[in-house]
Amino acid sequence: MKRIYFDYAAAAPVDPRVVEAMTPYLTEIMGNPSSVYTEGRQAIREIQNARQQVAELIRANSDDIVFTSGATESNNLALLGAAFNQKVPKKHIITSVIEHVSVLDPCKFLETQGFELTYLPVDNEGLVDPNEVLNAVNDDTLFISVMYANNEIGTIQPIPEIGKIANEKGILFHVDAVDTLGQIPIDVEAAHIDLMSLSANTIYGPRGVAALYIKNIKKRRIQPLFHGGGQERNYRSGSENVPGIIGFGAAAEIAKKEMESESQRLRGLRDKLIVEILTHIPKTALNGHRTKRLPANANIRFNYIEGESLVLSLDMEGFAVATGSACTSKTLEPSHVLTAIGLPHEEAHGSLQFTLGRWTTEEEIYRLLEVLPDIIKRLRMMSPLTPPDLLEE
Amino acid sequence: MKRIYFDYAAAAPVDPRVVEAMTPYLTEIMGNPSSVYTEGRQAIREIQNARQQVAELIRANSDDIVFTSGATESNNLALLGAAFNQKVPKKHIITSVIEHVSVLDPCKFLETQGFELTYLPVDNEGLVDPNEVLNAVNDDTLFISVMYANNEIGTIQPIPEIGKIANEKGILFHVDAVDTLGQIPIDVEAAHIDLMSLSANTIYGPRGVAALYIKNIKKRRIQPLFHGGGQERNYRSGSENVPGIIGFGAAAEIAKKEMESESQRLRGLRDKLIVEILTHIPKTALNGHRTKRLPANANIRFNYIEGESLVLSLDMEGFAVATGSACTSKTLEPSHVLTAIGLPHEEAHGSLQFTLGRWTTEEEIYRLLEVLPDIIKRLRMMSPLTPPDLLEE
Repeated sequence: MKRIYFDYAAAAPVDPRVVEAMTPYLTEIMGNPSSVYTEGRQAIREIQNARQQVAELIRANSDDIVFTSGATESNNLALLGAAFNQKVPKKHIITSVIEHVSVLDPCKFLETQGFELTYLPVDNEGLVDPNEVLNAVNDDTLFISVMYANNEIGTIQPIPEIGKIANEKGILFHVDAVDTLGQIPIDVEAAHIDLMSLSANTIYGPRGVAALYIKNIKKRRIQPLFHGGGQERNYRSGSENVPGIIGFGAAAEIAKKEMESESQRLRGLRDKLIVEILTHIPKTALNGHRTKRLPANANIRFNYIEGESLVLSLDMEGFAVATGSACTSKTLEPSHVLTAIGLPHEEAHGSLQFTLGRWTTEEEIYRLLEVLPDIIKRLRMMSPLTPPDLLEE
Repeated sequence: MKRIYFDYAAAAPVDPRVVEAMTPYLTEIMGNPSSVYTEGRQAIREIQNARQQVAELIRANSDDIVFTSGATESNNLALLGAAFNQKVPKKHIITSVIEHVSVLDPCKFLETQGFELTYLPVDNEGLVDPNEVLNAVNDDTLFISVMYANNEIGTIQPIPEIGKIANEKGILFHVDAVDTLGQIPIDVEAAHIDLMSLSANTIYGPRGVAALYIKNIKKRRIQPLFHGGGQERNYRSGSENVPGIIGFGAAAEIAKKEMESESQRLRGLRDKLIVEILTHIPKTALNGHRTKRLPANANIRFNYIEGESLVLSLDMEGFAVATGSACTSKTLEPSHVLTAIGLPHEEAHGSLQFTLGRWTTEEEIYRLLEVLPDIIKRLRMMSPLTPPDLLEE
């Protein structure tokens, strides 16, 4: 039986068109962009082309794109790079409580290095209030880091409004757009973004390749994490992963062309999934904002149920679904995002995160809707939390 | 005309058997090792398998392998990680003048952070003297970093002897084995190595994947460069590049099986190349040690010639050859390795580095030997440095 995959946010397959673009550079055409002979010069051109393709997806200048090895590296490069690169040292950083762990953990590390952090709360739909950003700013504020949209509950933040505040106050603005790229239009100029983390795999490019957008890259407002050959304008030393970068570029070009129609298609499937579950399964609710939401994300809580049991039951029926971010799923703690929007522990534990993708079909949604109600009923029968009257229906 | 490639050290093609092992994980089988469902559990098994394959190539415990994104990251993780992770702070570091730039540059950075560096000299064949290591050690010495073999001139260092000194003095020993892996047998236990950098592409695995061997990994003697999801035992946060890691494992398994016969084959071709050039072209000499040398490396100086002109002339004839490490070739400075072995600037500039590889054939060597003498003659005729009597032959 073919497996049905609803966890595109954890890991996405590479688009076959991307694989086709990369393959010649794996086995045949060799070249290190630092080499002066033909193959090296061709590698330079291919990387520049990929840089342009990625830049166009976020309306950036291609000079301002630095390739890295992953979203975690991009977030760390932005935050640690900005923190440790100051001529006039500032010590205050503003972020939100629902950031990805690869933003929150560098922030916690910076607290051990003498930095002062403000973790902004979110409302019960997961929104950061721009007024709270404004209130948190002080003369010592070095940067603001708020994610474009949340990877777990899909809530899209008022990034242009926050960017406007940062810009007016002359504060660096970092945005983790890893899960947003390719889902909704992004315009770094219009949103006043200074630093933005991007990843190839979320747009069906290869794993192990990502990027950091650095506005006015020549101003050198951040320092590198590594030291070495000085590649990527000395922001990211290390021989370039040429096939991976070419794959990222190809994925960006496809995403740019297909985003509008594909996001509409996914939004339709996603809405069907949400409406059908909320209508036909009692005691369920949507986590996150109803409309300010990534098109491929549905995060639903099923009262009285342990999410992990639900994931394993669905797994046995052929479905891959997550309880939250894969990056933190090994802990027994409930998702920090779900508790931040006010869910009590038991409701956070009973939430499922469905992320659809390029190969999700209507039939797959129907298949899920066929099996889900019975699984929920069975798990609720075993749960000591379930009220007896719910089982009598 | 098919190009002939003699710069495997700059970038190697991926073995088709490795591509075959990776491909299913690119487009079909998805999974993030942090996910609890079937695909996630399979990704964990595949990564563990790859870890075992890489460990076996260096006779290590597989628990002690941490996957990273590249050789530069591995070297930085080892050096910066050790420097910034001390309970009893020590401030003295010993390395050599011929290390790769991804070791030398972190060392220079550490000098700006209050560390004291000893850069050991090498003899005119590129060898570090273990006695000089012993003399440099003091009570404040934190670690010693010496590369297994030099990437430019191929000289293999007396690593077990240096390891014995480090071990007896209780000093951490880091070895950059990136260019050595798969060329000669490595035994981390026998050589008393604590930290060792490895890379996938040098053994015909994919680019963008590498590893750091960390002896007694649970002792936590180094700290991470990044902060985030805590992958790789918290030494390297970031979702794992599953297909890349699988490719590294497959490449290691092939290398282990074929190293002995393949190194013998390459040594034969390489020796033919060296002997023929030194015999038939006047005023040429081998850089590096004649026998303590990586099997696929030949580095030859051609007096009175500019290396870059030679590279471009060979490029036009269909050959890819380098003047030195690709990682630093964009500077106009002569190679720091060649000047360290005592070459005057003009001889360092006139040196070519040939690195052979898995697809190098005897015919390719003959093709080179056919065209090289005429190119040398022509360039020497144009060079103001050439003594007139040499041109009259």
